[in-house]
Amino acid sequence: MDACPFEKQHPSQLQKDALFFMQLAYNQALEAWKIDEVPIGAIVEKDGHILGMGYNQVERTRDATAHAEMIAITQAARALGDWRLVGCHLYVTKEPCPMCTGACILSRLDTVHYAVRDPKMGGLGGGLSIHDIAGLNHRLKIDIGVLEEECRTLLQTFFHLKR
Amino acid sequence: MDACPFEKQHPSQLQKDALFFMQLAYNQALEAWKIDEVPIGAIVEKDGHILGMGYNQVERTRDATAHAEMIAITQAARALGDWRLVGCHLYVTKEPCPMCTGACILSRLDTVHYAVRDPKMGGLGGGLSIHDIAGLNHRLKIDIGVLEEECRTLLQTFFHLKR
Repeated sequence: MDACPFEKQHPSQLQKDALFFMQLAYNQALEAWKIDEVPIGAIVEKDGHILGMGYNQVERTRDATAHAEMIAITQAARALGDWRLVGCHLYVTKEPCPMCTGACILSRLDTVHYAVRDPKMGGLGGGLSIHDIAGLNHRLKIDIGVLEEECRTLLQTFFHLKR
Repeated sequence: MDACPFEKQHPSQLQKDALFFMQLAYNQALEAWKIDEVPIGAIVEKDGHILGMGYNQVERTRDATAHAEMIAITQAARALGDWRLVGCHLYVTKEPCPMCTGACILSRLDTVHYAVRDPKMGGLGGGLSIHDIAGLNHRLKIDIGVLEEECRTLLQTFFHLKR
């Protein structure tokens, strides 16, 4: 296992915009790398407050459902005391897979911001467009590309060193 | 809240076939109804042994990810000590949604047996065919229709009484 060669980001608290929260998601991704997991991180935010954060820990928990987004969504639901994450925004360093896309729709998130597209397994436009299926009673908003280069380099470097 | 008018099934232990396990999934669905949740139940089985069982409890846990399948899959992973549910079969009373379909693929289940098709939100042929997307490194087998009538009546009656 190679030590993570990347440093945490330190965004200013003065401007809590999409970049700010994606930088925190990036920091979560570094936590995944530290335990030798694929470095993906996620944050759930509402009105400037962080309600959930998570990083991929499939291997550590030995649970295929322990993706960053699932952990952050479950945490946010606990914080709100409601499974409806109305007015909440998810920030995640890679496009959600079909499982996590489904969870985003079911939990009625307002917007999903993702940094890097996943043309193979992405569920929000990359491999599939699950958010576009007819008859959904909730429509997600999507925002793509915040902190894209850094998040892409993180993933590519991880897989490069793994080989 | 209307009391559940249906009775548990009592399949014979002598023939542990798909019908046997689906009847147990049906019994799990009744547990969901008892707490006023949409009655969907799931079982994970390997070599005739039950490794996980679950029923929908989104409202009780206040967590949109608490579907029957997710609970059964996580339980089975814990029982095996591995997120790879190789050789495992899922039995679920309704076609899995996109989230649960994603979890089935990620956990590398052998076969998903579902009773009732969901033409709106199903992820295994009903609304979408997530198991068919190109480039997946795991192929699920699908078996549809075991105990279909009973599972459909259960769901339809629940929603009818809710209205």
